[in-house]
Amino acid sequence: MQASQLLKQIEFIKQVDKLKYIQRKTRLFNSDRNENDAEHSWHLAVMAIILAEHANVSVDVLKVVKMLLIHDIVEIDAGDTFIYDTQKSHDNTAEERIAAERIFGLLPADQAHELLAIWEEFEERKTDEAKFARAMDRLEPLLQNVSNNGGTWREFKVGFDQVYQKKQAIQHGSESIWAYAEQLLRESVESGILKKTTV
Amino acid sequence: MQASQLLKQIEFIKQVDKLKYIQRKTRLFNSDRNENDAEHSWHLAVMAIILAEHANVSVDVLKVVKMLLIHDIVEIDAGDTFIYDTQKSHDNTAEERIAAERIFGLLPADQAHELLAIWEEFEERKTDEAKFARAMDRLEPLLQNVSNNGGTWREFKVGFDQVYQKKQAIQHGSESIWAYAEQLLRESVESGILKKTTV
Repeated sequence: MQASQLLKQIEFIKQVDKLKYIQRKTRLFNSDRNENDAEHSWHLAVMAIILAEHANVSVDVLKVVKMLLIHDIVEIDAGDTFIYDTQKSHDNTAEERIAAERIFGLLPADQAHELLAIWEEFEERKTDEAKFARAMDRLEPLLQNVSNNGGTWREFKVGFDQVYQKKQAIQHGSESIWAYAEQLLRESVESGILKKTTV
Repeated sequence: MQASQLLKQIEFIKQVDKLKYIQRKTRLFNSDRNENDAEHSWHLAVMAIILAEHANVSVDVLKVVKMLLIHDIVEIDAGDTFIYDTQKSHDNTAEERIAAERIFGLLPADQAHELLAIWEEFEERKTDEAKFARAMDRLEPLLQNVSNNGGTWREFKVGFDQVYQKKQAIQHGSESIWAYAEQLLRESVESGILKKTTV
């Protein structure tokens, strides 16, 4: 029994290697090189561990880390959608649900259910853990774009209004990180790397 | 106070981005593309979460995950040393210690001490968490090399004797994963992707 569990788990471990090929629009810090989803997930998990004390309420850090490590795995099948894409919804599409069921479904049943539930919890953004995890996911590309002289904001002509609307989610996870992020956004407008309005 | 804590933490978060540029010798699954340390750390953390039930004794999964997420951060300064390098010690060199003190030292003092202690615990391989984390670090490249028709074993002419000696560490973390890994090594010799002895 344990041996057949292990074989299913190993199969999952092999298949999720493909996350390393999924390119995000955002680039590494001070860089022209696109970030991939595995690197991104690693970075968010590290951030959650380092920044947990700033969460609005005390969170289960292991659960937050699990969420962040697996939150983009569905993109192996469904691909990365740019957060400011106006044609296609960014989150929780039917395509992503099918992907989640296929990929987490490689695992033994109990574990498949656990990870599917954690992924859904992240997507629904209702629990304290999901809100804090979401704050990490919004903060990293903000820091990257600032380091890259506007990065994807300039590249895709996205303005403060649209960015602010997406980044506000940070406050539901951490008011103190949001105070910092909001300040960064205002400074970005002042320095001209972020336009006031989307054109 | 909280604001100055946050600024130190953000500085750490920016600097560890460099882990994404540290190339390992090992390649992704079924691939010619080298893995980088950030992707590797992500994969090991996922593996620890998925495989925790196989640990010889019950482990603190959050601590194992923290270890794995940060275990290679010293390589930002010290570089990656190939595990079968006979000229240079793989672990715990003076260079790595200086790197750990510099990089974790970017964080607020309490956190710097915590992460330095976790890194040392991983390096010393004495606690149950460190042994299980080490097992993950030994298992991933084994799976990768098998998927790559011998991978670094063939490329660097490393034989079963040397590989077996390094991979044995898996049993201290998990006897059941070791049973699986040992079988894979024997099959690799049979299929010819791993030579019996190092030449």
